[in-house]
Amino acid sequence: MAHTIANKQKITARVRRIVGQLNGIERAIESEVSCSAVLQQVAAARGALGGLFEELLEDHLRQHVAGAHLSDADRQAGAEELLALIRRYAR
Amino acid sequence: MAHTIANKQKITARVRRIVGQLNGIERAIESEVSCSAVLQQVAAARGALGGLFEELLEDHLRQHVAGAHLSDADRQAGAEELLALIRRYAR
Amino acid sequence: MAHTIANKQKITARVRRIVGQLNGIERAIESEVSCSAVLQQVAAARGALGGLFEELLEDHLRQHVAGAHLSDADRQAGAEELLALIRRYAR
Amino acid sequence: MAHTIANKQKITARVRRIVGQLNGIERAIESEVSCSAVLQQVAAARGALGGLFEELLEDHLRQHVAGAHLSDADRQAGAEELLALIRRYAR
Repeated sequence: MAHTIANKQKITARVRRIVGQLNGIERAIESEVSCSAVLQQVAAARGALGGLFEELLEDHLRQHVAGAHLSDADRQAGAEELLALIRRYAR
Repeated sequence: MAHTIANKQKITARVRRIVGQLNGIERAIESEVSCSAVLQQVAAARGALGGLFEELLEDHLRQHVAGAHLSDADRQAGAEELLALIRRYAR
Repeated sequence: MAHTIANKQKITARVRRIVGQLNGIERAIESEVSCSAVLQQVAAARGALGGLFEELLEDHLRQHVAGAHLSDADRQAGAEELLALIRRYAR
Repeated sequence: MAHTIANKQKITARVRRIVGQLNGIERAIESEVSCSAVLQQVAAARGALGGLFEELLEDHLRQHVAGAHLSDADRQAGAEELLALIRRYAR
């Protein structure tokens, strides 16, 4: 069984807010805002994606690794997925 | 004089590609893809924003700090902006 | 029960190697190596500490979160510790 | 001309403090402190190395890229070194 996102609406709203930040960056470039201000907006959007990643990672850990009713095999699989994601993210 | 983005079209295209990645994440959540696959896509989008940040930072450094024809005052201001951006980004 | 480090000798050897890198940085500063070369050595030592952190985090996850014979309460406690460590590390 | 570290004594003292943190980690492992506490100390030492890197990077930028009396060629070389270091560090 594939584990899907727990709170679809809330997470989708968060993704859309980050799309809004990127649309703001595109407008800022278009209207020739200073490159330093554009860079700040890019750093903020990246920070927001990092926060989203961490929230999803926490959900994954709580449900698919630490969940009380998992089989041992599912728990091990969830743990290895988590480790691969952390390694991927730390690059 | 505010320093603006050097290569507007190329940078805008890059921002739009990242918007495309986020739209893909929204569809993945909607179609109940596994949370591990969604997390990988979020990590990839964050990596792409990191790459965009680094490219803009390089442009800023080359033009507004190391540029051959800057006044000393403009160069110092560009350097301090760069340091603030690096500190902001490293958090 | 406190969970202790699994492989004390191996981990200790790794810590000592990083101390060796830092001693090398001190000698490099003393012998007036270029600041760019010193910065590369500092980045390498930080990378080595990051690798050590990730290895210890993996051990913690495998033993104290995903371990087959944990009580539910211990597993939850291990998971919350892990999340706090990831948040701390990502700063 | 190679650019050397500006403030040798202060930077050396900082390196030695980080060695002290690592010696503390070795003792913590030896005395079987919990792995979560060891991980916190490793994250702290990595943070301290990151802070040292940022300070040295700022010195490099101020002296070897933004310095008022550099030749154009030296300034360009300093800028390219800086970019290589930032890329190296962001990995």
